[in-house]
Amino acid sequence: MIKYLVTVILCLALTGVKAQVATGPAPKNIQSPQVSKDGMVTFRFLAPNAQKVMLIMDDLKPRPMVKDTGGVWSFSANFAPDIYRYTFSVDGNVLPDPNNPYIKPLFKRALAQSLAYVPGPAELSWELKDVPHGVLSQHFFRSKIVGDDRDMRVYTPPGYDPKRKEPYPVLYLFHGLTDETSAWVTAGRENIIMDNLIAEGKAKPMIIINTLGYGAPEMFEPGTGQRTKEAYKKNEELFMAELFKEAIPMVEKLYNVGKTKKYRAVAGLSMGGAQTLDAGLNNPDVFDYVGSFSPAIILLDPDLDKAFPNLNESVNKKLKLVWIGIGKDDYLAPALRKYVDWLKTKNIKFQYKETEGVHSYQVWRRYLTEFAPLLFK
Amino acid sequence: MIKYLVTVILCLALTGVKAQVATGPAPKNIQSPQVSKDGMVTFRFLAPNAQKVMLIMDDLKPRPMVKDTGGVWSFSANFAPDIYRYTFSVDGNVLPDPNNPYIKPLFKRALAQSLAYVPGPAELSWELKDVPHGVLSQHFFRSKIVGDDRDMRVYTPPGYDPKRKEPYPVLYLFHGLTDETSAWVTAGRENIIMDNLIAEGKAKPMIIINTLGYGAPEMFEPGTGQRTKEAYKKNEELFMAELFKEAIPMVEKLYNVGKTKKYRAVAGLSMGGAQTLDAGLNNPDVFDYVGSFSPAIILLDPDLDKAFPNLNESVNKKLKLVWIGIGKDDYLAPALRKYVDWLKTKNIKFQYKETEGVHSYQVWRRYLTEFAPLLFK
Repeated sequence: MIKYLVTVILCLALTGVKAQVATGPAPKNIQSPQVSKDGMVTFRFLAPNAQKVMLIMDDLKPRPMVKDTGGVWSFSANFAPDIYRYTFSVDGNVLPDPNNPYIKPLFKRALAQSLAYVPGPAELSWELKDVPHGVLSQHFFRSKIVGDDRDMRVYTPPGYDPKRKEPYPVLYLFHGLTDETSAWVTAGRENIIMDNLIAEGKAKPMIIINTLGYGAPEMFEPGTGQRTKEAYKKNEELFMAELFKEAIPMVEKLYNVGKTKKYRAVAGLSMGGAQTLDAGLNNPDVFDYVGSFSPAIILLDPDLDKAFPNLNESVNKKLKLVWIGIGKDDYLAPALRKYVDWLKTKNIKFQYKETEGVHSYQVWRRYLTEFAPLLFK
Repeated sequence: MIKYLVTVILCLALTGVKAQVATGPAPKNIQSPQVSKDGMVTFRFLAPNAQKVMLIMDDLKPRPMVKDTGGVWSFSANFAPDIYRYTFSVDGNVLPDPNNPYIKPLFKRALAQSLAYVPGPAELSWELKDVPHGVLSQHFFRSKIVGDDRDMRVYTPPGYDPKRKEPYPVLYLFHGLTDETSAWVTAGRENIIMDNLIAEGKAKPMIIINTLGYGAPEMFEPGTGQRTKEAYKKNEELFMAELFKEAIPMVEKLYNVGKTKKYRAVAGLSMGGAQTLDAGLNNPDVFDYVGSFSPAIILLDPDLDKAFPNLNESVNKKLKLVWIGIGKDDYLAPALRKYVDWLKTKNIKFQYKETEGVHSYQVWRRYLTEFAPLLFK
């Protein structure tokens, strides 16, 4: 019996099966996504009895997959060097790719979205290069304001010196709805982008803070969570309170950072882009720089005079930069255009641009690459 | 058109659908795992056309799931408070649970194993409590020895002081085969266990290092990786070189830690348990404490006189503790018993225990809880 067991274990240990010491039956060895040198990407999913399998990518347009005789569904196409978010829709179930460890985790209700990485030239800001790397840290604390146990992620730049005489500047960088605190790292590659920008002398060494962007996290609770209008309102209000009363003071206690507005920037994407406008335009004495990436304006009070009660031309003297961008094919673009028109009626100074792209991290990595060099000059 | 879009977006934003701003079609809202207050756990997976769906847990015994009329497969049973690893086997495809964000990520080839958390009393060492929390950090570097870009994770205890006069002790804590560097955090909850032990005064504040345990990571590469006997040999040799020549020097440069053996402990599970014996017993001038949890002895040279070429009684004076444990139902137990007999023939002093359990983090969380308080006294 022992001999049999040892033989079984040796076979397990010395062959190419997946997760063998721990997981159970060896699944088929399926490679997905398979990326060839010319940018051809093949996505695969094993489901011999499924009737309809589709690939869902950043543009949300379902791409039908085709089944082979072995029960493996696949889709192949050429993709430019970039990082693509995707899931499989399998007879109504939406799944990340079980063969791909590269994911963007989600908050509370769902596992993750998969990420397909198509390597590109070194000019792309998110390509890992042989430059000094910053450190990512994760802090855990109980929020008295929200009433939950949560985390906060911190990027410290290469060679960060807690005793440096000139304190470091800080960029508060917010994630989107359904993301958790790691999203700007996993899909956004903020650490790699900043490492590269700093190595090239394009951006100042700065600290980046990724807070958890929920003031009402219970609305994501499986089974009981309700995403009502009231829940979103509470989410925004308590997130703002948590940011100003807990997160910023904690950062300024734990790290060697400046405690005045010239050392602070705020930016974010989608829900976080709206939170950025709320935090930045409503608190022009706290931040000098505001970067709103594809903001989900609809998550703020639809009565903009209530969402921005004291906003007037006086902020133009206080804020050094208000930067707003969105992909022109983003489904949130029409609402943002209306908001931009409203800002103009208020005589607020800001930079606005529409770029190629949809509602995706492909756009947001590029925006961070463009925005970070404008800060703390 | 704009009005239609705004309406669609508002509906998306204000209802309970999952991942709506980004993911695409709303999947069925399935709760899995659902844990009731009395410990009843229900696992669910939507697959209306699948023919055979099984739940695979730590004991690797497939549990058949049953399909309801809506196409949802489920399995329910009572489970004691703990954290359980599981995947779904769906017509031959092995998947993590798409509705559960709590996972243990895997290295290169596969996404993850899901974790089902059944809360328990505060006495359980891995329960999150309102005590001071340590910080987790992730460092990125190029290994010249292995030739890859890799990471290293660091737990610093609550209130870690880089300038403290007495340097901190360090526990090097190794993961298992197919794990990546976060495994001791996600499934092992090392940070929570240490926070609790330190708060209770049971363990000394210490730093924990989770290195990447692969000297031949290319053997996991999708498509090209081969897990041959030679690859495993290289894996062990280069991991040892990387540990001693890169990882330990880096830790001792970056952190306020002692640089002599009385400040160093090494422990690990499964593959990491074997690596621990290799690192510890073969280098008794480097570490004072050795903890081998359910070691996969089969991954070392089967000729133990070659795997431990200089091992003799002299280590008994050098090592303060050699601690070896395994679950009595672990499939690696028979091989370990033979190894333990061999250690006895060499007159090596060690503690050995067999506990309840299989090859799982349920065992390893308890071992860390028992082992950490024995260190640095």
